[in-house]
Amino acid sequence: MPLLVVGSIAFDSVQTPTDSRDNVLGGSAVYFSYAASYFTGVRLVGVVGEDWPEEHTKLLEDRKIDTQGLQVMEGQETFRWKGKYEPNMNDRETLELHLNVFENFNPVLTDELKRCPFLFLANGSPTTQLKTLEQMNGPRLVVADTMDLWIEIERDQLMELLGKVDGLVLNDSEAKLLTQEENLVKAGHMVRAMGPKFVVIKKGEHGAMFFSEHETYVMPAFPTADVVDPTGAGDSFAGGMMGYLAQKNDFSPATLKEALAYGTMVASFNVEDFSLDRMKQIDKADIDKRLEEYRKMLSF
Amino acid sequence: MPLLVVGSIAFDSVQTPTDSRDNVLGGSAVYFSYAASYFTGVRLVGVVGEDWPEEHTKLLEDRKIDTQGLQVMEGQETFRWKGKYEPNMNDRETLELHLNVFENFNPVLTDELKRCPFLFLANGSPTTQLKTLEQMNGPRLVVADTMDLWIEIERDQLMELLGKVDGLVLNDSEAKLLTQEENLVKAGHMVRAMGPKFVVIKKGEHGAMFFSEHETYVMPAFPTADVVDPTGAGDSFAGGMMGYLAQKNDFSPATLKEALAYGTMVASFNVEDFSLDRMKQIDKADIDKRLEEYRKMLSF
Repeated sequence: MPLLVVGSIAFDSVQTPTDSRDNVLGGSAVYFSYAASYFTGVRLVGVVGEDWPEEHTKLLEDRKIDTQGLQVMEGQETFRWKGKYEPNMNDRETLELHLNVFENFNPVLTDELKRCPFLFLANGSPTTQLKTLEQMNGPRLVVADTMDLWIEIERDQLMELLGKVDGLVLNDSEAKLLTQEENLVKAGHMVRAMGPKFVVIKKGEHGAMFFSEHETYVMPAFPTADVVDPTGAGDSFAGGMMGYLAQKNDFSPATLKEALAYGTMVASFNVEDFSLDRMKQIDKADIDKRLEEYRKMLSF
Repeated sequence: MPLLVVGSIAFDSVQTPTDSRDNVLGGSAVYFSYAASYFTGVRLVGVVGEDWPEEHTKLLEDRKIDTQGLQVMEGQETFRWKGKYEPNMNDRETLELHLNVFENFNPVLTDELKRCPFLFLANGSPTTQLKTLEQMNGPRLVVADTMDLWIEIERDQLMELLGKVDGLVLNDSEAKLLTQEENLVKAGHMVRAMGPKFVVIKKGEHGAMFFSEHETYVMPAFPTADVVDPTGAGDSFAGGMMGYLAQKNDFSPATLKEALAYGTMVASFNVEDFSLDRMKQIDKADIDKRLEEYRKMLSF
């Protein structure tokens, strides 16, 4: 089934302890779409400036991602982020942030986009996420991401959003910030009590936790020695997860768990190089092969 | 098969964000023995002062732990540790440390103890661990633990020890300190290259990683909302693991993975109360029941 993602598109400048890249393709909706495209048809809605090179659109379209919802704003610049990773490759510092076109991002959905049965509200303000959701025409499954910034400055809007989505994906520090609870098992269920039927807490190199009314489980990250750039790992994870759910057109507990496993695999490839460089090299068979290794790893 | 453990016995004073206990039973060999006793016959070697209450010996003997190797030093005091946990319940600060009798701990093994086929060298200096190992009469499996202190002040002796043991168990920060490598997958294999056939890196609430020549895997911690006191989690983990290996009298890859899973389960009970308070309430059936939940959690 078609999967719609609405979120940021960015040029990232990334410094790791051993290497760096300037102005490479990034952004939550980009990482998400590319990851999801291995599983289902993806429709991307986002905004860029006139500095956006056509080759980036082509890269997405080569994976059959529908880019009709890509707005190009003349005379403006694309969202830019510059960040630096600590030696542990988990903590990072934002060095520069230029919202540019993303500051006034106002997604307007075509009738075709409104009818997408699966929706992921990637990084964006809860206000924008709510505006997007209001345009939808009875989606089957809506999952949102959020960030520390929105928890801090748009808490009321975020709480309203949480009452309207089926699932929320957020990272461990955001879950602690949102609930003021340090135990992630408690925090996960507290977030769930704010509205979503299920909550996924991403723990970076330590994997992800899932919470629904009757289930609590953890899936470890795939242990890779080749962590080159963690940027986009969380969005790739969400993309793999939602892509698989849309492909199956199902979100039963068993399918959700498989979806988390697929998200984990896609994220594990994504971190093996900067931007989408590693993702560009793999196909679905590579993901399936690693999933079988992962399944074996967790069997005893 | 009989399992010998040689290590520290302590009185712990523990402060958590919400509660505290003073002078409760602790120490690496205590947590280890109690955990291992659910699986096999355990022989404990350690040293205490004349402040050691007989009820503690009885508690261990009630679980059929052989305490003949418990030395009581007249006129001296038992090792004491006082620590405080951060709100995340993972990081802790040592407030007081009194080695007392443990400072000159010199384990002397009886002929019966020397013939134990399974040996765990729990917390102690590499010098003491080597002295213990030298007394053994052809053990089938020797696994050691180590600590940041020994990596810093007895590195040469630790390296000598690593050439003589089958396995090493250490935590994530210790693995990084020992190898100067931040990526735990790389660090694990680097530690293995120092001598042991297998290495287990404990990650606290994030589980444990296993490394052998042909295998690298991660097992997440059991997600519990009731983390009351993490003290002894690592030693309980090692106890469950070694206890199971000794019970099976086998250390094939499949048995080692089951052993890690059992270690994870025992540790998850241990953290649910101070000292051995939670462990005292459970029996082997409780551990097996949680293991089945864990197995189900990791199946997809």
